[in-house]
Amino acid sequence: MRNAVRGNFPHVAALDTRWMDNDAYGHVNNVIYYSYFDTAVNRLLIEGGVLDVLGSETIGLVVDTGCSYFRSIAFPDKLDVGLRVARIGNTSVRYELAIFRACDEPACAAGHFIHVYVNRRTGRPVSVPENFRSLLEPYCSAQAMPA
Amino acid sequence: MRNAVRGNFPHVAALDTRWMDNDAYGHVNNVIYYSYFDTAVNRLLIEGGVLDVLGSETIGLVVDTGCSYFRSIAFPDKLDVGLRVARIGNTSVRYELAIFRACDEPACAAGHFIHVYVNRRTGRPVSVPENFRSLLEPYCSAQAMPA
Amino acid sequence: MRNAVRGNFPHVAALDTRWMDNDAYGHVNNVIYYSYFDTAVNRLLIEGGVLDVLGSETIGLVVDTGCSYFRSIAFPDKLDVGLRVARIGNTSVRYELAIFRACDEPACAAGHFIHVYVNRRTGRPVSVPENFRSLLEPYCSAQAMPA
Amino acid sequence: MRNAVRGNFPHVAALDTRWMDNDAYGHVNNVIYYSYFDTAVNRLLIEGGVLDVLGSETIGLVVDTGCSYFRSIAFPDKLDVGLRVARIGNTSVRYELAIFRACDEPACAAGHFIHVYVNRRTGRPVSVPENFRSLLEPYCSAQAMPA
Repeated sequence: MRNAVRGNFPHVAALDTRWMDNDAYGHVNNVIYYSYFDTAVNRLLIEGGVLDVLGSETIGLVVDTGCSYFRSIAFPDKLDVGLRVARIGNTSVRYELAIFRACDEPACAAGHFIHVYVNRRTGRPVSVPENFRSLLEPYCSAQAMPA
Repeated sequence: MRNAVRGNFPHVAALDTRWMDNDAYGHVNNVIYYSYFDTAVNRLLIEGGVLDVLGSETIGLVVDTGCSYFRSIAFPDKLDVGLRVARIGNTSVRYELAIFRACDEPACAAGHFIHVYVNRRTGRPVSVPENFRSLLEPYCSAQAMPA
Repeated sequence: MRNAVRGNFPHVAALDTRWMDNDAYGHVNNVIYYSYFDTAVNRLLIEGGVLDVLGSETIGLVVDTGCSYFRSIAFPDKLDVGLRVARIGNTSVRYELAIFRACDEPACAAGHFIHVYVNRRTGRPVSVPENFRSLLEPYCSAQAMPA
Repeated sequence: MRNAVRGNFPHVAALDTRWMDNDAYGHVNNVIYYSYFDTAVNRLLIEGGVLDVLGSETIGLVVDTGCSYFRSIAFPDKLDVGLRVARIGNTSVRYELAIFRACDEPACAAGHFIHVYVNRRTGRPVSVPENFRSLLEPYCSAQAMPA
């Protein structure tokens, strides 16, 4: 992903690392970065009042993710997860994310996370609801690029 | 826990380790053992036909767990999780578990896991249902001991 | 554990929940609480300057843990992990911990975590080093009780 | 990824799901799939005798991963992870992987995992060692495609 610099991510979520995030090589395991992405997106939706994990009629299912790793991080690093909305489609949203060490400029990793919004009971895709669009539009970035 | 030898666990679940289970010291992190316990108990209940994760009226909530660690294990070890039912109470069941390397005798860890059975909607404790009792009684062990 | 109230834990670590912490019942899985304990203890040792994950001659191995669960928590809750040092032995330290929702009084869970300190190369127990003792003594609590 | 059918993956690793893999929507969380990839690749390298987690001079660092999700899976599903080697470069290897339910044909997810091989002490890339090449070549597939 190009443009993985702080200024290109209009939303930032602070996040902790955990002891268990480190793998046998003493740095955060590649898998865990996706948990940071997952947490940043869902926290935005929940704190923005559009997603209620147990009650919402519309929920997001993940259909595609990816990550490039540039610099290792390790517990007890504190992190900033940058988030921008690259595309709001009819039934899906492409989020782009980058991981920074707190107070540190270069991105340690960057990737994408695509949600399809579905009806909780039927599992069928639905148009991205109006309240999701209103919440997400301020985070759309002219800098977003296809991977 | 005394008696943490294979012969004292009437049920055994085979289980894999994962790369990510190893922490920065190169062995399985202490936290992960509880995931082995959790998996062994729930697999028994599901495969025994008494628990349907999304549909059952009665579900088990965990109220107390504990583990003692004797020998380290590490990915890619293959494991056997021994399980015995130490006590079936009115609304709760105490499971005792031990972790063995496959084909290896001494226990690497042993602990307990206490489920209270509740009504999924109300969250209130219920008497352990008859079908749970029938499933679990064969795994009660005269060898079970208070921790 | 008795005395699981905020006033009895002289050290507090703020900690985030993650989307993935929630299990199929929509609350934080019992296993994950141990990751909060693990993180709080190791963060204290690392930030206190006595543990270097990759370099220290002395490292802590976990020999016993336990947890009682009182109230469920769920992502995106923010947590405070209370920590007190219940006993500094010759080669081991017993930590007692409790999980609180941020800004909330009653403990959601409480437990213990026992480290034996060993030489990294030999794996043999060593006397708890002087710098560990100096770091930990201020967190000893007269309120600590056997489980 | 095209060609995500069993016949196009010359190596298959059997793998268990865990209770904790299920998230609040009752299916395996998107993050966990990467742990299946990670485990399949490292198990192949370790069981093939070319990687010793704590001792090898050459280790693999992950520089890029991705996954597309087609069908949900859920604990207690048993899985087969299909693996093929898409490209052996000078210092890196691109693995392609797919997740199948045991005894079930259609892929539930498919993705890639790129290792750069480095010297453990210096962290500098090295030519993929001869013993890695010998181990991996039989798993190269004419079916491998750029994502």
